[in-house]
Amino acid sequence: MVRDLVEDLKLRAERSKLPVPVGVSNRHVHFTKEDFKAVFGADAEACLLKDIKQPGQFACKERVTIEGPKGSIANVRMIGPYRPYTQVEISLGDARALGLEPPIRDSGKLDNSPGIKITGPKGSIQLKRGVILSKRHIHFSLKEAEAYRIKDGMEVRVRCGAGDRTTVYEHVLCRASDKYALEFHLDMEEANAAGLKNGDPAYIV
Amino acid sequence: MVRDLVEDLKLRAERSKLPVPVGVSNRHVHFTKEDFKAVFGADAEACLLKDIKQPGQFACKERVTIEGPKGSIANVRMIGPYRPYTQVEISLGDARALGLEPPIRDSGKLDNSPGIKITGPKGSIQLKRGVILSKRHIHFSLKEAEAYRIKDGMEVRVRCGAGDRTTVYEHVLCRASDKYALEFHLDMEEANAAGLKNGDPAYIV
Repeated sequence: MVRDLVEDLKLRAERSKLPVPVGVSNRHVHFTKEDFKAVFGADAEACLLKDIKQPGQFACKERVTIEGPKGSIANVRMIGPYRPYTQVEISLGDARALGLEPPIRDSGKLDNSPGIKITGPKGSIQLKRGVILSKRHIHFSLKEAEAYRIKDGMEVRVRCGAGDRTTVYEHVLCRASDKYALEFHLDMEEANAAGLKNGDPAYIV
Repeated sequence: MVRDLVEDLKLRAERSKLPVPVGVSNRHVHFTKEDFKAVFGADAEACLLKDIKQPGQFACKERVTIEGPKGSIANVRMIGPYRPYTQVEISLGDARALGLEPPIRDSGKLDNSPGIKITGPKGSIQLKRGVILSKRHIHFSLKEAEAYRIKDGMEVRVRCGAGDRTTVYEHVLCRASDKYALEFHLDMEEANAAGLKNGDPAYIV
């Protein structure tokens, strides 16, 4: 038992020297190519606004309005490239304003999630499903996962924020892939609750 | 040292049996009588909508628009009764939308806080100061403070939320007074980050 405790303390000490940079996700939409064309027009192509930290992913110039049974939110940014599914990621506050009760999910897991109406300059689509609250997660490259002694799919506690807003988020999902770069992803409300902005340090504790 | 550790464990065990109910504070305004009259009219009186948990405090029917350099927010609720100072409590997200950088403060501590314009049906006032982000806090009656072994002014860690949104908030200010009733106050973003609603249990850990 003592050996286990010492191992655990050593692991904690190692990780405490390895901050994970915060990435704040504002509400956004991922589109299939087909759904994209339906709202932006058959001849349109997703247009790069700026690269984001995850390799190959980028914020697009395109923005849409999303509309639920209780309200709508304008100027919701598209994140590219196209995906095999259309997905809308919002915060709990957004969900209340829209009148939806989305589940907390890992990206792409859309079973039994609510639908929503999405409107762009050239048309509207009514999704049957696809609205989620993103589950807090950390992206690791495979090399980074090894350095942090993390396995894909495990959950960790993350301490973040400073001073009066210091916060520990539990059940943070770890996702390791050669397609990822080190980043702790939270939605806007989770970031604000801990007073965080992009690039701030967070620690696995 | 062992005795201290055992005492600490006993205290933790006691507190773990005493949940503190959550009270979610949406953005709101407290008015002096004079400022109230300036925006609602000389003959107006604050009108009870419903009592809230803190003794003598109540949500009012009156709502105002608050306006900062970057934007405005309508339908901001007044909390009565009148106070010796006018104070606007908002979330960090609200502050960004308004274009303000308010400090995190205990209620009533308004030195060097930014001002804001407040508009009601009968007029506007321009506050010189008074906008704060409320510091997370727990209200205790004196009897409750004794039961939890809390002293007014101390800070504690609070574990709250469930499942994927389980969260520990650190530096939670304890306020003990014969005017208070047991309640853990958070703003809307802090509540949403932990998936909390009014009355949910939180634990001092």
